[in-house]
Amino acid sequence: MRGRFITFEGIEGVGKSTQIARAAAWLRARGCEPVVTREPGGTPLAEQLRRIVLDPQDGPLAPSTELLLIFAARADHVATVIRPALRRGRWVLCDRFTDATLAYQGGGSGMNEAWIRQLARIAHPRLEPDLTLLLDAEPALALARLAGRGGRADRFESEDAAFFGRVRQRYLALAAAEPGRVRVIDAAQGEGQVADAIAAVIDAALAVSG
Amino acid sequence: MRGRFITFEGIEGVGKSTQIARAAAWLRARGCEPVVTREPGGTPLAEQLRRIVLDPQDGPLAPSTELLLIFAARADHVATVIRPALRRGRWVLCDRFTDATLAYQGGGSGMNEAWIRQLARIAHPRLEPDLTLLLDAEPALALARLAGRGGRADRFESEDAAFFGRVRQRYLALAAAEPGRVRVIDAAQGEGQVADAIAAVIDAALAVSG
Repeated sequence: MRGRFITFEGIEGVGKSTQIARAAAWLRARGCEPVVTREPGGTPLAEQLRRIVLDPQDGPLAPSTELLLIFAARADHVATVIRPALRRGRWVLCDRFTDATLAYQGGGSGMNEAWIRQLARIAHPRLEPDLTLLLDAEPALALARLAGRGGRADRFESEDAAFFGRVRQRYLALAAAEPGRVRVIDAAQGEGQVADAIAAVIDAALAVSG
Repeated sequence: MRGRFITFEGIEGVGKSTQIARAAAWLRARGCEPVVTREPGGTPLAEQLRRIVLDPQDGPLAPSTELLLIFAARADHVATVIRPALRRGRWVLCDRFTDATLAYQGGGSGMNEAWIRQLARIAHPRLEPDLTLLLDAEPALALARLAGRGGRADRFESEDAAFFGRVRQRYLALAAAEPGRVRVIDAAQGEGQVADAIAAVIDAALAVSG
């Protein structure tokens, strides 16, 4: 039996890492040993490409170059980690996937979304998440949390609140377009409440306890 | 005035490097200072990606990963070298371009040609070579020449004659499909005759002397 592919999405500061760890623990307590992975990254090659995208040596990359590198990394991650795990019947919890490219590079940076969708069909044909949990919060709240924990200041996180506002709106539009797959979780709640909400959605959608 | 974009194609051993140098000298003698570049490679990032494709650290790349990396390299080469040179009115002589991906990865290795064409539209929208010189010879002749000069033994060159036969046929099919752009040069001739044939084609097509 093929495993399930669950992705976690949302802007910086909404608590994705914490919630993925809690969801993994919740699944483990129910006898399911999930594979936890993340993007950008997830394989040695993808990490190497991630470093190039975050810190290009010879000036800013052209949008097409950036998108092709992002999807090369994703194709490697899918071919060497995600698909093999799913084929072995494992559940995969992934911190970000193609929705993040649509939200960040598309909604946030205005890159060509038709290109993003074409690249997705090449990088992961016939593979979409079974379930996507969109952790949603106002950018002001998320950025305040991020500052509070002394967040990294890489390229994306140094962008301004307007950028994250556009990313958030694009994420919400993706949820509205695919309400069966993308579930919006109110990330302004306390950590435990968010974890309970996520567990309930996973259980209802994928019948873990059933 | 925009410069002209001329690509040189053909299997290993047909003498592309020599002929590109001779064509550049011929153009220089006519007051045109061409930019000479090559693929895979042509920029520091593209060279880095080329090394990954030729020698992946963790086993063979998936076809989609390989194609996305090839086109990420090409997008960088186009954005940072080829388009700026053409905009400055320079002529660009390039050793291999997207026809090589169609011939090698498509014809030779059987990768999805629809993907290759989609990726080309993303990596270099509205940019096709003004003229492509296909140096054509029997694989047996080309491989014998290559052995004679103690050719490199990288991944592509260690492939067998059947592979190069498929690549050659795909190149010839590309020439048949676009006879105005892709001109077949008989590379079995002597070096000087090939150079004369190339100069005549460039002159006739792009009116260098006119």
